[in-house]
Amino acid sequence: MTQQQATVAPEEVRTVACVGSGVIGGGWAAHFLARGYRVAAWDPAPDAERRLRGLVEAAWPALIRLGLAEGASIDNLVFAPTLAAAVAEADFVQESAPERLDVKTSLLAEIDAAAPAHVVIGSSTSGYSMTQMQTGAARPERLVVGHPFNPPYLIPLVEVVGGTSTDTWAVEWASAFYRAAGKSVITMDRELPGFIGNRIQEAAWREALHMVANDEATVEQIDLAMTAGPGLRWAFAGPCLTFHLAGGEGGMAHMLDHFGPSLKAPWTRLESPELTGELRDAMVSGTDKVVAERSTDELIAQRDRRLIAIMRALAEVEAEEAAQHMREGR
Amino acid sequence: MTQQQATVAPEEVRTVACVGSGVIGGGWAAHFLARGYRVAAWDPAPDAERRLRGLVEAAWPALIRLGLAEGASIDNLVFAPTLAAAVAEADFVQESAPERLDVKTSLLAEIDAAAPAHVVIGSSTSGYSMTQMQTGAARPERLVVGHPFNPPYLIPLVEVVGGTSTDTWAVEWASAFYRAAGKSVITMDRELPGFIGNRIQEAAWREALHMVANDEATVEQIDLAMTAGPGLRWAFAGPCLTFHLAGGEGGMAHMLDHFGPSLKAPWTRLESPELTGELRDAMVSGTDKVVAERSTDELIAQRDRRLIAIMRALAEVEAEEAAQHMREGR
Repeated sequence: MTQQQATVAPEEVRTVACVGSGVIGGGWAAHFLARGYRVAAWDPAPDAERRLRGLVEAAWPALIRLGLAEGASIDNLVFAPTLAAAVAEADFVQESAPERLDVKTSLLAEIDAAAPAHVVIGSSTSGYSMTQMQTGAARPERLVVGHPFNPPYLIPLVEVVGGTSTDTWAVEWASAFYRAAGKSVITMDRELPGFIGNRIQEAAWREALHMVANDEATVEQIDLAMTAGPGLRWAFAGPCLTFHLAGGEGGMAHMLDHFGPSLKAPWTRLESPELTGELRDAMVSGTDKVVAERSTDELIAQRDRRLIAIMRALAEVEAEEAAQHMREGR
Repeated sequence: MTQQQATVAPEEVRTVACVGSGVIGGGWAAHFLARGYRVAAWDPAPDAERRLRGLVEAAWPALIRLGLAEGASIDNLVFAPTLAAAVAEADFVQESAPERLDVKTSLLAEIDAAAPAHVVIGSSTSGYSMTQMQTGAARPERLVVGHPFNPPYLIPLVEVVGGTSTDTWAVEWASAFYRAAGKSVITMDRELPGFIGNRIQEAAWREALHMVANDEATVEQIDLAMTAGPGLRWAFAGPCLTFHLAGGEGGMAHMLDHFGPSLKAPWTRLESPELTGELRDAMVSGTDKVVAERSTDELIAQRDRRLIAIMRALAEVEAEEAAQHMREGR
């Protein structure tokens, strides 16, 4: 594996090319603009420039509320006439084409041929592995997946992983760049269908589909169960920290030792893995890292403060929207 | 099925008995006190009163921030010397004993024997059905499940369902009472292991356990993937509304028609149900009800406002905590 470096340090990127400017690519463009980058966009669809500018303008008030980086401006968006022109001066390329393997593979090969030699190219794919997509590229070592969540200008998560022909430096460079661009990055050391976030999201989604298919719950009940229940906690504490707190003073260890048998209960269609001693210990030591020496009392106080802050913030937004509707006479 | 009514209307409840006052029962007590009820608690554990009062006092500042009902006071909490004394004057009983079927069954029979004849009795169980638990009661028709999420004084969701011997009026009375007490209520017309919220939560949890068991992800990565990704959206939009927005202008219908094939992809261990025309239509019409005639642009604007409000609220809490730590010299 070569240790060749990209030409620009991750923190010194000035220009990002966004290839494909639909909902995801356009969302990336809005994010990069808000973080102060110059964005060169390209998309072959007719009317693409108008739609992209509309999307960025619609997102901009939200991004102002969230706080723009110094020098950030919508004026830093250029819509390039060709793919080659878009990537010619880019320090990083984000590809967000439709989810079709043939489209992605040939587009990545074209980007690879047109972009400066050591520039890292990230793909927004949610469905394919880079190993599948990098087969047409002359320099596949600089191709990585940088998988965002919708909308990319607000949701922080990006999952970064390379293919079998990707060099380690490219994965590391991309992870450092996304972090510098304000994202929360998970760097994966192996390709996993659905990455991590989508595996969890998809498990919940399929359970929901099963419940509707079997007349066990309605769509409305499912959505309310999420937003009035576990969803409120998951906005700030993942499933592991949440269940650590369910274990009281004994934490994750007590939770697993005490509720382990209920893993066999038919609470979902998804079968549980065997709760071996090894898995138990991995969950406990991993949760210890997430807890980072906070006491149970401290964790509970932090949880309560966050739940209240979220519920109050959502109530304020609802009150504002209701007042707005009143003013508009709706 | 008798149509006998409870003695008190759901909106006129004054006194709630909390039988079992651990983390869940104590959380219920704090919730009911904050909503202005008188609470009579009982728990056979030594030191139970001191622990209960500690829990309520720890939760009280949070409940003040969230807003107390008129007349709400910690002084409205009475710790009763016996089970019979606790339930004697109750207009509603919430049972929150440890999750053991024999304990629950005999305790519910005791409560039933001691409580006024037409008072509804709710169980906090997360693991048993009321059909299993009501076998020892002389008046099983008034026994329902009222399943909360932790902490019950903050998370709004309560899932209400009866057993085979429960009368419809009791399920309806309990649903109306919990609503009057400020909860978000899902009334289920059948017993389902894990109810609805836990089925979804448990599917996500088991997928997480599988990933750790297979060295595919660490606990830290899983928790970050949730809180920086789908968890932020799930605090205000359930899985169905979220995927409706993923479908763009075409909404849920386009999402299912376009991404249907990816349901077969191995994005989780949970197999997907067959996406029949019937299931597709049920998802589309159910999502229509959740959408309630809001346009896609309006939904996106609402989503963005809520995401920003949540992220800003969480950032403010973090800044406050950091300042607090500085003051404490930690």
